[in-house]
Amino acid sequence: MFDLLKTDSKTRARLGRMTTTHGVVETPVFMPVGTQGSVKALDPRELEEVGTQIILGNTYHLFIRPGLDIINEAGGLHSFINWPKPILTDSGGFQVFSLAKIRKIRPHGVEFRSHLDGSLLFLGPREAMEIQRMLGSDIAMVFDDCPPHTATAKEVRSAVERTIRWAEECREQPRAKRQMIFGIVQGGSHPVLREECARAIVGLEFDGYAIGGVSVGEPEPEMFKAVEYTVPFLPENQPRYAMGLGTPAQIMELIARGVDMFDCVLPTRVARNGTAFTRKGTISIKGGAFKRDWSPIEEGCTCYACRHFTRAYLRHLLNVNEILGLRMLSVHNSHLFASVVADARTHLMAGTFADYHREFIAGYVPTRRVLAARAQSSAT
Amino acid sequence: MFDLLKTDSKTRARLGRMTTTHGVVETPVFMPVGTQGSVKALDPRELEEVGTQIILGNTYHLFIRPGLDIINEAGGLHSFINWPKPILTDSGGFQVFSLAKIRKIRPHGVEFRSHLDGSLLFLGPREAMEIQRMLGSDIAMVFDDCPPHTATAKEVRSAVERTIRWAEECREQPRAKRQMIFGIVQGGSHPVLREECARAIVGLEFDGYAIGGVSVGEPEPEMFKAVEYTVPFLPENQPRYAMGLGTPAQIMELIARGVDMFDCVLPTRVARNGTAFTRKGTISIKGGAFKRDWSPIEEGCTCYACRHFTRAYLRHLLNVNEILGLRMLSVHNSHLFASVVADARTHLMAGTFADYHREFIAGYVPTRRVLAARAQSSAT
Repeated sequence: MFDLLKTDSKTRARLGRMTTTHGVVETPVFMPVGTQGSVKALDPRELEEVGTQIILGNTYHLFIRPGLDIINEAGGLHSFINWPKPILTDSGGFQVFSLAKIRKIRPHGVEFRSHLDGSLLFLGPREAMEIQRMLGSDIAMVFDDCPPHTATAKEVRSAVERTIRWAEECREQPRAKRQMIFGIVQGGSHPVLREECARAIVGLEFDGYAIGGVSVGEPEPEMFKAVEYTVPFLPENQPRYAMGLGTPAQIMELIARGVDMFDCVLPTRVARNGTAFTRKGTISIKGGAFKRDWSPIEEGCTCYACRHFTRAYLRHLLNVNEILGLRMLSVHNSHLFASVVADARTHLMAGTFADYHREFIAGYVPTRRVLAARAQSSAT
Repeated sequence: MFDLLKTDSKTRARLGRMTTTHGVVETPVFMPVGTQGSVKALDPRELEEVGTQIILGNTYHLFIRPGLDIINEAGGLHSFINWPKPILTDSGGFQVFSLAKIRKIRPHGVEFRSHLDGSLLFLGPREAMEIQRMLGSDIAMVFDDCPPHTATAKEVRSAVERTIRWAEECREQPRAKRQMIFGIVQGGSHPVLREECARAIVGLEFDGYAIGGVSVGEPEPEMFKAVEYTVPFLPENQPRYAMGLGTPAQIMELIARGVDMFDCVLPTRVARNGTAFTRKGTISIKGGAFKRDWSPIEEGCTCYACRHFTRAYLRHLLNVNEILGLRMLSVHNSHLFASVVADARTHLMAGTFADYHREFIAGYVPTRRVLAARAQSSAT
């Protein structure tokens, strides 16, 4: 199901191809997030136009609304949302641990209250796999215990143990026809726990492996460590997925560290606040500086927004709360993320990835928050 | 600039063609409203796909934000918003009288405070025409005095007198190259005032004539009366425009009464509340009845929303506040309005308009509010 086509000679970056029920996915790949059955503000045509190969759906959210009976009656998630290409579904673990209230961790799952109406619900390995089977995603994720980055070493250890036990249970559940299943490695930024968890999960023989417990509020240097502590223990010939990451520069760094798959809400979330991603960093289009700026969001960009509209017009739309403004930034940002990884694939093929990577990082201005975390890290 | 191609033998309906700087407009025509430089939630491609021939822009809103200097520097409104087809701009009169606060009516215009930041502004015939000249619309509207439907006969009379005086003043102002100018007839539902105003305005020789003072909160029967009292005094060989109207059934009735042009925020406004227009009336897609409804919004509709999505999916999107839900209803509703008038043109051409009109009205279920007003009217 995964062909490793090439490994970069100067970095750990890889070029791959994953074959799913709904088509081929070229890796490295960025997956836009369709939390509630829609990649926010975009329609399927726009998603395809920006170069989307695969999207992510959220088990937890879809389980709560519209509910499984509806999606099942529609013939699965692809049919319900009318997306013909591959879908990866998460297991709901992340949301249960971050979003839901008053939870009790039981041996076979988590008792929690819906963040919406407070109703008592239960999600564990069996339930998560059954839901994903009914959703009919191309790739299902195991149900894991994802602790916050503030968790103690002891808490992270018990999360690792639970994650391994639950992964075994997930492995045994029935799946949809040709549905792949990925294991998840937890372990925070503890090298020993990462190795231990990775070895155990890999021992269960999944179709791919995710690095979880990142994008949980940790500073960037810790995130990189978590990935670096995990990757060496993952098999070469299977896809590797860093969950919930990241900025274009972080994705580029992670590709160089041997990661193949990414998902993140950033491109569409920041668009709704008026922020555009470019190859040089982010810009807040609402700013007064763009009042009379007749250039596109990003010079040379071929997305619909950049081919049709100026920064000055988009700034106006955002300032008067016109939906077209956030729509166009969502289009541009999603196109940018897809393009950055598409360019990575092209350079991997051409053997020029290391240069592309170096130049990209040199040209990209990180946010102040990222810079502060880096300074903090190098000082300690 | 306007060719009257055909007049229906059984009704007053007309088939026409208007030639503007930015292209030909076939009438009867429905004009989507781009209040702040964007037809809410739609992009130009979608607007063209639903069959839009011409859109409306609001002088008052664009004057306040982003301001004229910006639009002027962009090269006019078409260029600023990247809409290549015709644009009609209103004069701002309606908004000044309905939206703005603490206003003083002066001989040459209205002093008012911005509804946004309270800043003191002035708009009159000179200003409105100068703004529309700079916006570069294909059709400019005169600056009129538009009283609410609760105005006394005396108030309506003075509004008529002011409207005529201001129309004269507008007529004298410079305009953009080949920019048309339409006069506006006021007079409430008073036959004498409507006739008096119509005769005076027509005497000033405009390129077209609008019926104003409708869609100002009056019940439907009064609206029809206002139109019926005005149309007989408008020249046959020029376009007639009923401002701010209406539902599909009202538009059909007004076409049958000899009106050629319409604009209304309804299709996009109600879409944002989850309401879809169909040829049989409106439906609230959020309703529980559509939870498992796997049919499109309207059977047989060829819009993007109906070709791609079910009512059940759109209901889910609307209920979880996903932007795609209101976007798709905006697409469908705008397509429906464009299709209803396009079909009217086809039937006018074929000589079957009277049947189309009768069947359309028979099949269309008006809202309770409209029905109540009709019952009230026939009882008195």
